[in-house]
Amino acid sequence: MGDDLAQRMIDASELHGDFELSSGARSSVYFDKFRFLTKPDLLRDVARAVAVKLPGGVELLAAPEGAAMLLVAAVALETGLPLAVVRKQPKEYGTRAQVEGEVPAGAEVALIEDVSTTGHQVRRAAEILSEAGAKIRIIVLAIDRGGANHLREAGYEVDALAVIEPRA
Amino acid sequence: MGDDLAQRMIDASELHGDFELSSGARSSVYFDKFRFLTKPDLLRDVARAVAVKLPGGVELLAAPEGAAMLLVAAVALETGLPLAVVRKQPKEYGTRAQVEGEVPAGAEVALIEDVSTTGHQVRRAAEILSEAGAKIRIIVLAIDRGGANHLREAGYEVDALAVIEPRA
Repeated sequence: MGDDLAQRMIDASELHGDFELSSGARSSVYFDKFRFLTKPDLLRDVARAVAVKLPGGVELLAAPEGAAMLLVAAVALETGLPLAVVRKQPKEYGTRAQVEGEVPAGAEVALIEDVSTTGHQVRRAAEILSEAGAKIRIIVLAIDRGGANHLREAGYEVDALAVIEPRA
Repeated sequence: MGDDLAQRMIDASELHGDFELSSGARSSVYFDKFRFLTKPDLLRDVARAVAVKLPGGVELLAAPEGAAMLLVAAVALETGLPLAVVRKQPKEYGTRAQVEGEVPAGAEVALIEDVSTTGHQVRRAAEILSEAGAKIRIIVLAIDRGGANHLREAGYEVDALAVIEPRA
């Protein structure tokens, strides 16, 4: 089932055309992660597969601000666990929080990301959650495009539903 | 049930302390919308109540980028409808899209927002969806803090699960 799900995520998300990548290079293929996150049947199946990866003791789910919010909401509904969202920047008024949602002191967190290529955004989110008092129990990537190794080198436990070759 | 749900959203989200509002004024009460979106039981009940508000013929759900992504994911799982996310700015590479997810030409859309005070962000998202080829069938607000009237004046059909007095 894991491989089948990986193929479904890829099939839903691989676009063909003429695309400029964030590096400035051009490509005839583009991986649009929103495509596998915006179809409810696929989103539910991905969320269930993420839920299976969660070790016992996880009390809180978290995701970086952005597309992964769709996935973390689905995993929260699947597991009954509350969630938190890590902003790129702290909110400028009100709570001034960089982590939205409640983070009980010492809460064991599963940090969830849709796709990670470099691991940078996930690592930054993990650090912000730790500063907010959480313990990062595991990082689960729907798709590892190279980020998992960097995150493991930084000392995190990482799991992924699918591995795709990193971008050239 | 509607009023009970409204009260549950308020109870989950009303924080007491000393807060600076976006206007610069200070307040001893702050409404933190992430609180009602990050608890899975409440998120599910809000999503179900939104689903009940959807007229027949709606083919696609949409939400502005941000907290409402948690809600629109839950409504998509509840209804089986696909979803789209409207970015504040177009993506700078790849698809260069301002609307993420697929928008079939002429698709009848329900635009969903967590809380609307002025209606501005929702109205802008509705305009971007229309430019992308969608038809805005209805706008559903979880909490109307004053935005609904502005959106109705702009010609949209609007419904809300709860109405809270606009901020002073």
